Amino acid sequence: MKLTILGCLSAAPNKSSFPSAQILEIRGSSFLIDCGEGTQIQLRRCSVKLNSIEHIFISHLHGDHFFGLPGLISSLRLLGRTKPLNIYGPVGIKKVITLMLKVGDSWTNYQLNINELSSSESIVLLENIKFKVETIPLNHRIYTNGFLFTEYITEKKLILKNAIDYGIDKTQFSGIKQGKDGISYKGDIIKNSLLAEPKLDNKKYAYCSDTCFYPEIIPTIKNSSVLYHESTFLESHKELAAKTKHSTAKQAAEIARLANVKKLILGHFSLRYKDLNIFKSEAKSVFNNIELAFEGKKIII
Amino acid sequence: MKLTILGCLSAAPNKSSFPSAQILEIRGSSFLIDCGEGTQIQLRRCSVKLNSIEHIFISHLHGDHFFGLPGLISSLRLLGRTKPLNIYGPVGIKKVITLMLKVGDSWTNYQLNINELSSSESIVLLENIKFKVETIPLNHRIYTNGFLFTEYITEKKLILKNAIDYGIDKTQFSGIKQGKDGISYKGDIIKNSLLAEPKLDNKKYAYCSDTCFYPEIIPTIKNSSVLYHESTFLESHKELAAKTKHSTAKQAAEIARLANVKKLILGHFSLRYKDLNIFKSEAKSVFNNIELAFEGKKIII
Repeated sequence: MKLTILGCLSAAPNKSSFPSAQILEIRGSSFLIDCGEGTQIQLRRCSVKLNSIEHIFISHLHGDHFFGLPGLISSLRLLGRTKPLNIYGPVGIKKVITLMLKVGDSWTNYQLNINELSSSESIVLLENIKFKVETIPLNHRIYTNGFLFTEYITEKKLILKNAIDYGIDKTQFSGIKQGKDGISYKGDIIKNSLLAEPKLDNKKYAYCSDTCFYPEIIPTIKNSSVLYHESTFLESHKELAAKTKHSTAKQAAEIARLANVKKLILGHFSLRYKDLNIFKSEAKSVFNNIELAFEGKKIII
Repeated sequence: MKLTILGCLSAAPNKSSFPSAQILEIRGSSFLIDCGEGTQIQLRRCSVKLNSIEHIFISHLHGDHFFGLPGLISSLRLLGRTKPLNIYGPVGIKKVITLMLKVGDSWTNYQLNINELSSSESIVLLENIKFKVETIPLNHRIYTNGFLFTEYITEKKLILKNAIDYGIDKTQFSGIKQGKDGISYKGDIIKNSLLAEPKLDNKKYAYCSDTCFYPEIIPTIKNSSVLYHESTFLESHKELAAKTKHSTAKQAAEIARLANVKKLILGHFSLRYKDLNIFKSEAKSVFNNIELAFEGKKIII
């Protein structure tokens, strides 16, 4: 999986930073997660082909998470898109998009599939042999979902040197990656464990924005490879975080610790803070492997 | 009047350019004309205080002219605005803004006055002692208005050197600016024409985007100080201009010539053209005083 942060501000864009949007690529498929105003600008700046996006996941209908969507939909038409676009977001999103196209007497040349979400339980949105996407119901001022992306690791990694040393011909490599034993040119059976590395666990990326401190998500995001968790505030504004149903950096780290994730990325920072390093140091008191989101940041999961 | 071009692309924003938006300042009042996606970013980059905007004029409901509006409205709340905001735009704009706030369970702390337009005749939107704003009905694929801004020049400019030479005391200066004669310290009456420059004509700025070649606007924009006219295309794409109800650079210049304006600004360029200087040279064959719009350009009218 390759994650690119397009924007990680809370609230409005300013002259150099953008609100929430991310691109996640899983084995040839491209997902856009949230779409604040200016996302199409950031997609171009980060050299993401707009037409490569297959699925768009909108966490909730606050403007900083979806005001860039009508513009992106319009631009895809101008770019001559013909393949379908799938959008997943809270009930109401379809009416907004339909109205914004209608008042401009506009349309799309491609099929626009809008899937409205209203479940308070985690549900599977997409699943195939390569990946699965599920919702992570969050606790914010309005109906909000995070999203859990699982990449299925179906093949082991071949140990090429061993295969050559044991005299295994290439035609067997595919089977060895699937877990089969090999047969040497002498006819000896070579155990799979000598020819391939142990199968890796599935990779999981959990996106959780916006939410208050909400340990109910832990069973869903347990053992994720990477957790992106909002940290709009620092502990010094803990009351404000509670009132607005956002999290502090320390609370995000507490979720990461309880869920036993491998890495935590903090984002959705309030504009009031000039030095974002304090988010990292505050969270480090609870959880060790932390990175701060910034625009253009790429993370290989 | 001071005009600042915030964006002058047609269609979508890209990594370095923005769709239609302008700020016009008239004697302490600030008007936003059109509001494509990313306008709030451009306002900050051009050091325009978002809260200084009193009136917003939206020409039509194609996305490149209004998709930045919901975000700007939201940002003004976050900035703590309390004074009213007045929006003028086609019928439908109120429903869009209301719905986008509603789905986010959002609101404004300030009074939002949305004035929906549907007249096919030019109407006065605002008038006071300092200025007047009227619509310029245009001819585009959907209902569209340009806007004509008139600054009333109510005072003459005092010729200070003459006033001193003729022995006029300061208390008379205000009256002289209003057209009164002066009285010298010896008691002689000094004619106003010796103490003040001839009164200047009212200043007029006409904004015309988007429209096909439409000479019906000429009586309304006649003798304007500055005309901004869309020129999405060059003559080489004249048929496409007609089909999409846009104008070519030459057609914009023809309107400027027929309306006897003092200066023409070309803008709303299609992304297909790399060298914008061709717009200027094409238009120069018809009209002489031409400038090209670009982001951040400031024009004193």
